[in-house]
Amino acid sequence: MNLGKRRLFLSSNSVYKNLKYLEHTVNEMSEFLVDVSKILFIPFAAVAEKENLNKRWAEYNEAPKKAFADFNIEVESVHIFDDKKQAIKNAEAIFIGGGNTHHLLYWLRDFELIETIHNEMKNGKPMMGSSAGTNIFCPTICTTNDMPIISNPTFDAINAIPFQINPHYLDPDPKSDHRGETRQQRIEEFLKVNNRKVLGLREGAWLQVENNKILLRGLTGARLFTQENEPQEFMPTEEGLDMTEILLD
Amino acid sequence: MNLGKRRLFLSSNSVYKNLKYLEHTVNEMSEFLVDVSKILFIPFAAVAEKENLNKRWAEYNEAPKKAFADFNIEVESVHIFDDKKQAIKNAEAIFIGGGNTHHLLYWLRDFELIETIHNEMKNGKPMMGSSAGTNIFCPTICTTNDMPIISNPTFDAINAIPFQINPHYLDPDPKSDHRGETRQQRIEEFLKVNNRKVLGLREGAWLQVENNKILLRGLTGARLFTQENEPQEFMPTEEGLDMTEILLD
Repeated sequence: MNLGKRRLFLSSNSVYKNLKYLEHTVNEMSEFLVDVSKILFIPFAAVAEKENLNKRWAEYNEAPKKAFADFNIEVESVHIFDDKKQAIKNAEAIFIGGGNTHHLLYWLRDFELIETIHNEMKNGKPMMGSSAGTNIFCPTICTTNDMPIISNPTFDAINAIPFQINPHYLDPDPKSDHRGETRQQRIEEFLKVNNRKVLGLREGAWLQVENNKILLRGLTGARLFTQENEPQEFMPTEEGLDMTEILLD
Repeated sequence: MNLGKRRLFLSSNSVYKNLKYLEHTVNEMSEFLVDVSKILFIPFAAVAEKENLNKRWAEYNEAPKKAFADFNIEVESVHIFDDKKQAIKNAEAIFIGGGNTHHLLYWLRDFELIETIHNEMKNGKPMMGSSAGTNIFCPTICTTNDMPIISNPTFDAINAIPFQINPHYLDPDPKSDHRGETRQQRIEEFLKVNNRKVLGLREGAWLQVENNKILLRGLTGARLFTQENEPQEFMPTEEGLDMTEILLD
């Protein structure tokens, strides 16, 4: 598969340990954005009662706004636009925030924005996601950790990459006697009914897609699950670990 | 709401700590079953590649079969019957096993068994579930912990009780610096978009529904979440804690 003009920044999480919102990654995000002066933020993963959604989404926009203020990059939320499709077409760059992936998909579908985002993405508009916002760039949301609090007729998502990401990937706690499935067991269940690679992206790690390459970057690593092979561990290098071949083959 | 003839045994989990399958609860399950000599087992929560499903389900049936052998209760899996609806109608009692709730719902819908089970349940046939098998007796599967590995056009489930259960309920680990949502946060998201009580049932606990009463039993307790009030803790008594009023009001 050729990634063409795609430019993606897909982060496992928004808050790393005790750091501030995006603090662990905002430098690299700003470098990735190059000459962008304004980001269009998609806040639909933030959950609220229907009558409070606009208020909640307005509040949520404050977090990335603050994080990018030091870089002279404005952040405006898509929910304030009557014509949201046009807002996406007009945007210099898009950032989809974290929260509940099912809720995010529900509102993206309700506003009929999936296809528009997909098309802009294919044409090279820089797109960033974290957590649920990273999940939504996968072919489906089938590797989310989130509770299915709202139903969608399909789990099909933006489909910017041909593999799945599991954000907030978590190793099992060897001292726990809790008997719910481990994250690895859940991903192995996914692989029994879906033939598609899953990259478990630990908190602190992200993928950068540009120049037809996929680089693993950040403070931690990733674990790759496939139908054919045992899980494999990957750690980023300073420049980013080139995972293009292994993820696209 | 009147529970009528309903007889349900809804367990948080199948394996408790280092005990054997159902070991922590099989005595009480057998008492609940009274004169039942054969259980019909529903193994659809067990995940496998499509071509291996029947083999996987046959293997899975061995676990409850072993657990009930000491009580002279046979266990037969529904997957071996050509006419599965009739098998459910003919059954003395039904047990729905744990695994992946989305996969369980998918196959119950594919075999068109939801309504048949609902009707038999309303007529007083004893029904038991554990983990995913407990989730599926709720109005929807929206409070499952499982990865949405397979899509369903609706999350509506058997609807044997008018509230939701979150099985394997887990308290947050105060020492963790992982920033994924806690179970409580996930349930609070559910409550923002659904006005329905959620009982977080800790591993080791179960609910028994009979004689128009709902009793909390087992080795551990439960945490109740509602839109109106702060979460409340409940611990079972020897005879079972009567939660009928609080869960049905």
